[in-house]
Amino acid sequence: MYLEDIPLEDALSRFWTALERAGALAPLAAESVEVKDALGRVTAEPVFARLSVPHYHASAMDGIAVRAEDTLGATETSPVQLRLDTQAVWVDTGDPLPAAMNAVIMAENVHDLGDGRLEILASVAPWQHVRSMGEDLVATELVLPENHVLSAVDLGALTAAGHTCVEVRRRPRVAILPTGSELVEAGQPGLQPGAIVDFNSVVLAGQVREWGGQPTRLPITKDDRSLIRDRVLTALGEHDVVVVNAGSSAGSEDYTASIVRELGELLVHGVAIRPGHPLVLGVAHNKPLIGLPGYPVSAILTSELFLKPLLYQLQGLPTPTRPRTRAVITRKLLSPMGEEEYVRVKLGLVGERLIAAPLSRGAGVIMSMVRADGLMRIPRFSEGVLAGSEVDVELLHGMDEIGKTVVAIGSHDLALDLLSNALARKTPGASLASANVGSLGGLLALARGEAHLAGSHLLDEETGEYNVSYIERHLAGVPVVLLHLAGRVQGLIVPPGNPRGVATLRDLARPDVQFVNRQRGSGTRVLLDFQLRQLGIDPAAIQGYAREQYTHLAVAADVASGAADVGLGILAAARALNLDFVPLFNESYQLVIPRPRYESAVLAPLLEIIADGRFRSEVEALGGYDVAEMGRIVFEKR
Amino acid sequence: MYLEDIPLEDALSRFWTALERAGALAPLAAESVEVKDALGRVTAEPVFARLSVPHYHASAMDGIAVRAEDTLGATETSPVQLRLDTQAVWVDTGDPLPAAMNAVIMAENVHDLGDGRLEILASVAPWQHVRSMGEDLVATELVLPENHVLSAVDLGALTAAGHTCVEVRRRPRVAILPTGSELVEAGQPGLQPGAIVDFNSVVLAGQVREWGGQPTRLPITKDDRSLIRDRVLTALGEHDVVVVNAGSSAGSEDYTASIVRELGELLVHGVAIRPGHPLVLGVAHNKPLIGLPGYPVSAILTSELFLKPLLYQLQGLPTPTRPRTRAVITRKLLSPMGEEEYVRVKLGLVGERLIAAPLSRGAGVIMSMVRADGLMRIPRFSEGVLAGSEVDVELLHGMDEIGKTVVAIGSHDLALDLLSNALARKTPGASLASANVGSLGGLLALARGEAHLAGSHLLDEETGEYNVSYIERHLAGVPVVLLHLAGRVQGLIVPPGNPRGVATLRDLARPDVQFVNRQRGSGTRVLLDFQLRQLGIDPAAIQGYAREQYTHLAVAADVASGAADVGLGILAAARALNLDFVPLFNESYQLVIPRPRYESAVLAPLLEIIADGRFRSEVEALGGYDVAEMGRIVFEKR
Repeated sequence: MYLEDIPLEDALSRFWTALERAGALAPLAAESVEVKDALGRVTAEPVFARLSVPHYHASAMDGIAVRAEDTLGATETSPVQLRLDTQAVWVDTGDPLPAAMNAVIMAENVHDLGDGRLEILASVAPWQHVRSMGEDLVATELVLPENHVLSAVDLGALTAAGHTCVEVRRRPRVAILPTGSELVEAGQPGLQPGAIVDFNSVVLAGQVREWGGQPTRLPITKDDRSLIRDRVLTALGEHDVVVVNAGSSAGSEDYTASIVRELGELLVHGVAIRPGHPLVLGVAHNKPLIGLPGYPVSAILTSELFLKPLLYQLQGLPTPTRPRTRAVITRKLLSPMGEEEYVRVKLGLVGERLIAAPLSRGAGVIMSMVRADGLMRIPRFSEGVLAGSEVDVELLHGMDEIGKTVVAIGSHDLALDLLSNALARKTPGASLASANVGSLGGLLALARGEAHLAGSHLLDEETGEYNVSYIERHLAGVPVVLLHLAGRVQGLIVPPGNPRGVATLRDLARPDVQFVNRQRGSGTRVLLDFQLRQLGIDPAAIQGYAREQYTHLAVAADVASGAADVGLGILAAARALNLDFVPLFNESYQLVIPRPRYESAVLAPLLEIIADGRFRSEVEALGGYDVAEMGRIVFEKR
Repeated sequence: MYLEDIPLEDALSRFWTALERAGALAPLAAESVEVKDALGRVTAEPVFARLSVPHYHASAMDGIAVRAEDTLGATETSPVQLRLDTQAVWVDTGDPLPAAMNAVIMAENVHDLGDGRLEILASVAPWQHVRSMGEDLVATELVLPENHVLSAVDLGALTAAGHTCVEVRRRPRVAILPTGSELVEAGQPGLQPGAIVDFNSVVLAGQVREWGGQPTRLPITKDDRSLIRDRVLTALGEHDVVVVNAGSSAGSEDYTASIVRELGELLVHGVAIRPGHPLVLGVAHNKPLIGLPGYPVSAILTSELFLKPLLYQLQGLPTPTRPRTRAVITRKLLSPMGEEEYVRVKLGLVGERLIAAPLSRGAGVIMSMVRADGLMRIPRFSEGVLAGSEVDVELLHGMDEIGKTVVAIGSHDLALDLLSNALARKTPGASLASANVGSLGGLLALARGEAHLAGSHLLDEETGEYNVSYIERHLAGVPVVLLHLAGRVQGLIVPPGNPRGVATLRDLARPDVQFVNRQRGSGTRVLLDFQLRQLGIDPAAIQGYAREQYTHLAVAADVASGAADVGLGILAAARALNLDFVPLFNESYQLVIPRPRYESAVLAPLLEIIADGRFRSEVEALGGYDVAEMGRIVFEKR
């Protein structure tokens, strides 16, 4: 089998042309629903008023209904008297106007003389203070056209116009067939290596709902061609669209394309986009049949590009477009020529600049979609973008929310996760986005104006002080506040029971010990290299010294999986994965904050949280932290 | 009872301060729901990963798993051979990496020598083409903070991280109690004058749903103080918020304020906003108790201002703000000092200018909310705005949609309703917004650049031609295309059976005949006045000549209700309300379109519809229309 490389526009146009030909793009038929249940549904036909609103001439005030002619000439100096019942009738707001009357005088302007006569001090014009029949809607008038999404207000207008039911478009029915012998249902105990929890179908079902459709998640189906074929065939009978996930590539167990070819017409196999290349588009039994790639980000993006416009079309709606903005990209990105790439970015408003930090480009990293605020497109004939250049970003979240994002770039600490949650708890809509590039990377990001703050624990080997000399060197022109967050213990993370008996840094050089390192520029790496020099240990003697991980937890994960026997990190990371820990050094984890950021509104709630007892206890509960001096200003630079 | 006049900010602050004191602003407790059902729900606590993703080292490619060390030195000229099983293992994407291996070579770069040996042409680095354990998520890592609205992607991440259920905030339960002896359930046959269909509660329930809450519509309750009191009391026990609608004013049967005072604390009675003045805010049994005004627009706006932020607060979410824009207001608006007024406007992009046309300001006109694209606020200490001034508008619809709106200002014809629907059918998201100000008003609006087109049927008494001389006079500098839409019959609209035996215009002057007129500047009025002059009839002799309605249907509605015996109008309007019709004159209904608009993209679909047979048949089916020349260009002005 052969995977093509069709440009996105061509793939879309082949797909839509074939669907149009098959009559598969016509809006779906109507179904009748009660108006009160029709919120968000789409009208399938125009709705005309059955009743006029109001359906009679109604008093618009509490007062008296009169004939305007009878009030002529009334003034404060020469009031006019009206006889109750024949010339004036008390009415409340909403009461029907008595047949002979054509105006209302407000109660405040009427004196009841008590003897069946009323005195008025001003004349009224005909139809004054009257809501005439049909003022709001006249029977037969158009209330709403077809293809209209019903809002709460619309439901009221339909009810007022005499409708209790409304014809709306049936929701598009979408079958989602998860295939793959490696897939297991979520929640099964004792997950084996090689087994993968099916979560793509959960995302796809959610997307279908977000786009107004009605998803059916079919059972997980193993890589058995005839079984998959049969289920696709059944699904085609009962749904408007069938989505197979995955098996869309060209491997030996990738059956989607061949099944599409057997059941109908294979239109596209392979699109020049990234992630998302191994995509299958077809039409079978006059219905769209889509094979999405297996990697979650690929599946999510291709479903956005191909399934979303289809579902809106079937509902008679335009596909909503996302707002766009310009932002400054923080890193150089190379992208292969010939493929259009979608890069997920985290956005943050740092000072006046909107900063876009690229997230993981791995097609398997769903958290890159969870964390993304925007999508940046690198066109097919571009080789990438330079760091610091302005790029166009499609917004996944509102600018309101993005304006409340605190961007932390630097060293990772579990306390930052707690800080992130405390911020979301305290200030709804706010968030802390942290990118883990190590302490030094954080300072460099601050120097480039790309972050609000950096977590850092860079030890100065000469002074024994943390961070200060590094700040002097790398943030020369920037006024800075250095805030102590917590003292913590660094040590050796080892498997439960410490099977290799690792006790000191010297043991790292043993031939039977496999080490996992942190990346250059991280505080932990600085600490390790300093200590190795002190002890005269040659890094080349340490197996795994070249394997670099970016966070404490990633180091611990390597130890937990057996990829390494030991790593240097913090107690909290070891605890989190039920590993053992050999404490070695105390160190200080601090936040480096440029003064303009320190004084900005976006950081105020974060600083309050750090000064607050609840957060302090939460950090303390992680274990291995000394929170006594949390929030102390350690150093200030003008 | 006394209605106060509290500024909006003060009312909000009194309300929130009292609710805070009562502990009624804390986010609601959690409930556990299945992840797959949690779309759009709000996390009630932080969610940490239970599983790492991947939870093992996985091959990221189809190929062979190897030890990177074994591949050292391999090049095209000096390939390296590996023994299958001991040095190389075939793996598919997603397969676990065998324990001894630490890298994967893509199948494309491997030659199978067939004798249990494989040849490779390039070395690989350790961990190349491997998704290491925890690459996406490390167990214990924060997946999502609390107060987070769950998207489809989030559901996938939660599932991947080992969660099948998630703790989300309970939806705020809101009781809506419709009160009023005049209220009836929708759908009752034989509506009597004075009876009002309860549609406010339908809107309020829809709003509560739109804002994430769970509404309960309680039964319609007549104006009986003790009955209302008892139902409020019960509702307070079972809901988070209780809304009474209406009885919020200070009339003799307005009980809401006094019930709030009895059951708890009355905080606000009367806010200086318009519409919406008679509002009740209170706290009872430590819960918010709100009395909304009875007029629908008042109820909708006050619920937006007071209930919406409350519901978001209870869910731990920020209240979403609407985007704003600047637009040019088409009419002078006077507004009373001391009250903040919310004016509904229809927006349209005419050429380069965003035009805001004020809709009905009546608090009873729900269609003004249905038709509105934006809300304009006239501050408390402003007397209004001048025509042509730029104003700030809060957007109710997206600018995408607004950009596809065709603005028609001028004479009304039922064919415009059909055209409006045909446009929504043909171009999802597009709409035709028509303001009925009469033919002359339409030409003046075109001259001011406020509309895309004007429906017009202005007869030139001298030439017998329609519109041309009026266009020459009022659109002097504007190149114009005049398009024939339909010929139609004007005549006398009379009750069924024509009880007064009205046969000609002469009968309008009879003392036993009550007439209803169209407004000055309407084509029908021009026609009437011309014919009256021809016949030598003095308008002063016609009873009701001064009562002006703005549309044919409104004239027909007056006849149907008995407010008038006869009006001049078109057959379609008479038919629509089952009235009789005495045909008098044939006339031409045309569309006046400035050339730049005629050639613009926004009008293209409309012009196609007019050229299209389906629309033509729909207009013909209305009756009384001659569609033979539909779409013919009658006149062009450079």
